[in-house]
Amino acid sequence: MHNVRLEVAYDGAEFHGWQRQDGFVSVQETLEDAVENLLGERVTVFGSGRTDAGVHALRQVANFHVVTELVDDRLRHALNAHLPESVVVRRLETCADDFHARFSATGKRYLYVVATTRFRPPIGRAHLSWICQSLDFEAMQHAARDLIGEHDFQGLSSLGSKPTTTVRRVRALRWIRRRERLAFVIEADGFLYNMVRAIAGTLLDIGRGRLERNAIAQVLDSGDRGAVGPTAPAEGLYLLRVLYGEGTFARPDRGPAGVPGVFQP
Amino acid sequence: MHNVRLEVAYDGAEFHGWQRQDGFVSVQETLEDAVENLLGERVTVFGSGRTDAGVHALRQVANFHVVTELVDDRLRHALNAHLPESVVVRRLETCADDFHARFSATGKRYLYVVATTRFRPPIGRAHLSWICQSLDFEAMQHAARDLIGEHDFQGLSSLGSKPTTTVRRVRALRWIRRRERLAFVIEADGFLYNMVRAIAGTLLDIGRGRLERNAIAQVLDSGDRGAVGPTAPAEGLYLLRVLYGEGTFARPDRGPAGVPGVFQP
Repeated sequence: MHNVRLEVAYDGAEFHGWQRQDGFVSVQETLEDAVENLLGERVTVFGSGRTDAGVHALRQVANFHVVTELVDDRLRHALNAHLPESVVVRRLETCADDFHARFSATGKRYLYVVATTRFRPPIGRAHLSWICQSLDFEAMQHAARDLIGEHDFQGLSSLGSKPTTTVRRVRALRWIRRRERLAFVIEADGFLYNMVRAIAGTLLDIGRGRLERNAIAQVLDSGDRGAVGPTAPAEGLYLLRVLYGEGTFARPDRGPAGVPGVFQP
Repeated sequence: MHNVRLEVAYDGAEFHGWQRQDGFVSVQETLEDAVENLLGERVTVFGSGRTDAGVHALRQVANFHVVTELVDDRLRHALNAHLPESVVVRRLETCADDFHARFSATGKRYLYVVATTRFRPPIGRAHLSWICQSLDFEAMQHAARDLIGEHDFQGLSSLGSKPTTTVRRVRALRWIRRRERLAFVIEADGFLYNMVRAIAGTLLDIGRGRLERNAIAQVLDSGDRGAVGPTAPAEGLYLLRVLYGEGTFARPDRGPAGVPGVFQP
């Protein structure tokens, strides 16, 4: 019995999210079907966390337990041959029995991308968010600094799951600007449900002038969901990376190109 | 009666090409339907030329004759409200009666984009071509120089239409390289059917080492279609711009963001 971990990229536009749901095409089930078609065995693929419908991943991490004679590279190759073009296994390796994609993770990094063109871009519109106006970049940068560090993010998340704690540590937030595209990369030890999209929606409302610059600081103080911007659209969100201890996926990576128009990881 | 010219962007992945065809969704018919729904009049929209199924456009130009009270900006706005998200009218202006998008054009500019990642990129795969190996960039650059100037491009096109002449003047070819993406922009006074894709396929085969560096020079001499690479996939091709005399679309343009991952026009 191997414990196999894998790093996968997928186009969120073609899935109803990561998690298996009856009657919808999920990334999890697509991977489980590929393993079953290949090895004749039904496995459960554990992801590092869910991504919602429409949310993309460049390097989601998952693991599953399976009996197979195939060495890692053959298994990766064969799995890719059984997967649709909307999902690709970038890396795959046999790992310690106690590795669990979710519980072993020490952090995550997400990207949120917005186009601020006058017209909605017809090309690649499933892969970024769009706002029909320019934004006050300096105000957004200023407000985003308040996110750094350990805070109770209850006000910047959605109800739905009941985490034991709503405190998270945001380790870094970096802005990227290229012509009429704007993006930020955020890293934290973990994220609450819809946390990145709530942060994005609030920062964008600050950029539009609908919210004050101190809106982030205020909601972190008060926990009041009423004081934040709307949850930003899923199309703009990318799970970039799941962080573990050293030595995970040590082998070289020459994977899919980056995020359309903005970001080359 | 106005003669109206418009500049449109569209996602080729969602159309069976520019030209109206029974039983298929074309950009031309989509525009004609929008005009009819808006103004109650059936018009013929003349494009600067066809684009094939899967080929994208950032600035295709077209014109049509119509009776309307709407001023240009209102008409553009109203047309966009009647169009699906896969096509957007970027600019629109009333023009001289004798302007014809096709016959008035003095040149065109196309972009061809390839990803050379190890795995097929799952995100944005309808918007670029993919080759699973690195390419000899220097050999491709060298070979491309032979395209510049006036040549008989019969060997670098497909049969299908019967142009009066197969001589065209390539004015410029520029390379863009960003990590594992490679692209070229080509401008000519006109293009034969499938000419850019034949050029792309031949340059890529030179980059792969399947054809010699002088393959372009040879086919321009011999006109022999057997000596060139296969027609490159439509996904990687973008009509960037149609060129006219000065003063066309003089008003400022703040349109859709550029081509995913590579190119900001």
